[in-house]
Amino acid sequence: MRTIDWVDGAIELIDQTLLPEECVTLRVTTVDELVDAIRRLAVRGAPALGVAGALGVVLAGDDPALIARLRAARPTAVNLAWGVDRAAAHLGEGREAVLAAALRLRDDDIAACRAMGERGADLLESSLPSRGGLRIMTVCNTGGLAAVERGTALGVAQTLHERGRLAEVLALETRPLLQGARLTTWELARMGAPHRLVADSAGPYLLARGEVDAVLIGADRIAANGDTANKIGSYALALGAARAGVPFVVVAPESTIDPATPTGERIEIEDRGPEEIVTIRGVRLAPEGTPALNPAFDVTPHDLVTAIVTEARVIRP
Amino acid sequence: MRTIDWVDGAIELIDQTLLPEECVTLRVTTVDELVDAIRRLAVRGAPALGVAGALGVVLAGDDPALIARLRAARPTAVNLAWGVDRAAAHLGEGREAVLAAALRLRDDDIAACRAMGERGADLLESSLPSRGGLRIMTVCNTGGLAAVERGTALGVAQTLHERGRLAEVLALETRPLLQGARLTTWELARMGAPHRLVADSAGPYLLARGEVDAVLIGADRIAANGDTANKIGSYALALGAARAGVPFVVVAPESTIDPATPTGERIEIEDRGPEEIVTIRGVRLAPEGTPALNPAFDVTPHDLVTAIVTEARVIRP
Repeated sequence: MRTIDWVDGAIELIDQTLLPEECVTLRVTTVDELVDAIRRLAVRGAPALGVAGALGVVLAGDDPALIARLRAARPTAVNLAWGVDRAAAHLGEGREAVLAAALRLRDDDIAACRAMGERGADLLESSLPSRGGLRIMTVCNTGGLAAVERGTALGVAQTLHERGRLAEVLALETRPLLQGARLTTWELARMGAPHRLVADSAGPYLLARGEVDAVLIGADRIAANGDTANKIGSYALALGAARAGVPFVVVAPESTIDPATPTGERIEIEDRGPEEIVTIRGVRLAPEGTPALNPAFDVTPHDLVTAIVTEARVIRP
Repeated sequence: MRTIDWVDGAIELIDQTLLPEECVTLRVTTVDELVDAIRRLAVRGAPALGVAGALGVVLAGDDPALIARLRAARPTAVNLAWGVDRAAAHLGEGREAVLAAALRLRDDDIAACRAMGERGADLLESSLPSRGGLRIMTVCNTGGLAAVERGTALGVAQTLHERGRLAEVLALETRPLLQGARLTTWELARMGAPHRLVADSAGPYLLARGEVDAVLIGADRIAANGDTANKIGSYALALGAARAGVPFVVVAPESTIDPATPTGERIEIEDRGPEEIVTIRGVRLAPEGTPALNPAFDVTPHDLVTAIVTEARVIRP
């Protein structure tokens, strides 16, 4: 199963807003539809956004206004703009060349996620004391649904599971949009991997209680110094992991590293507005008119990051 | 308005499971009804549980089995057992003496919360640089709804507001039962105090971003060494506050300090089961059959606590 692909002249993607109840494939034929799908998180996850950006250029043709809108549909993940730029570099060679570039990017993502899974699992197996299996904590969704076929951080858990070395994944539910509760649990159940769901706020405490061997997260943008922007809640886990002496490992493709951003302070953090906080799946939680602050990402300073695993290397910031 | 009181021979309490949509007063005439109200969090908050325990002994008469059930209805907050024991000490003197003891406990709570509000506000005003107003972060609900008339940590914010020294309260929503989203916002709106709601996972990041002058939390049990059990998520805020150099202040009555518990490791942490995690207000979030872990409280080690404010003193662990 592919999260996003090019099929018969259009982008096809799994509408992740409908999971876990329904697994529906959307067919996207215009940039407007694609921007809408990106904004409402029907497609999400840094690697998947890179592929969506590249394939979107095929739909945009050589309309620079459309390409600019697509490129700016979400600000924090660097991969979207990167994917757009990679495909747009071939605009002068015609539509077929743009499509070929986008499909190469899709295939590269599949290979990169497999390589990250192997390298991350090797790192954990070599650095953690040999026990029955490893207990992994993660936030948001970094599985196949965040990429094309296999994921980043959850791809490492998947590889450990295939090697018989995964004891459990503790998945944070990931308010406000509950990617952990809805998507990560769904993927882990399909893999047959043992897992339990926990409230986001319980993460640091469960680390303190000794229930986790490693924290694995993805990334939306990694600054040149290793500061890592990722789903809100990642920083709290990094603080908890540091205090508990548990490795905090970022798993992301090389394309997530942004040499143009020197430190995390320069990363724009998307605020997605109050509605996602005062309601949940359509149910009102707070009194009418309650104001809210909704940063969708946070920045973990590099001194709290044990290692960054990419398809090419292990970086220790 | 009182959260809990004795009216015409019965306990009356606001059913907090129905807020903020409806403010309904429950009339409780038996221990069974009271235990049910406590377990399903119709009445909650350490000080309110102390008063509920004491008044419950009036309903129990001298039936030791009923008293034991009431005392054990929730394990983490010390105040419930403390309130039961305080009233039960008068059982030999007849029902009127038990009632009088319970009403003294109610009146003591009202006075203690007022004193904590003043002392906490004095502490913050004296220790923080003079600016327009203080920006407070808090978790769960520690307002009047957690006590009888005024609250503990939120009582300090209320006092600051009355002094014209409150800039804003950033209220964490407090998954799974959303006491912050449902109750704290409701109380702050009634006070006319500026506030914004945030996801629990955003707390540490907003501290790092410099948006908070002090974190104020309540407590369910404070060990002899100052380790503090409070709503899940408190520990993550303590880690974030320490890293950001922001004071982390516990506000609780003396009755919450448990000299019989030497350290936080000895505090029993209630796990409330998976249902609260996999659903929210009746809406299913995760795939059918998803297992969950649901610690309702966590323990903040005393080295992360800047000060404990009680009705009698300021303790610096």
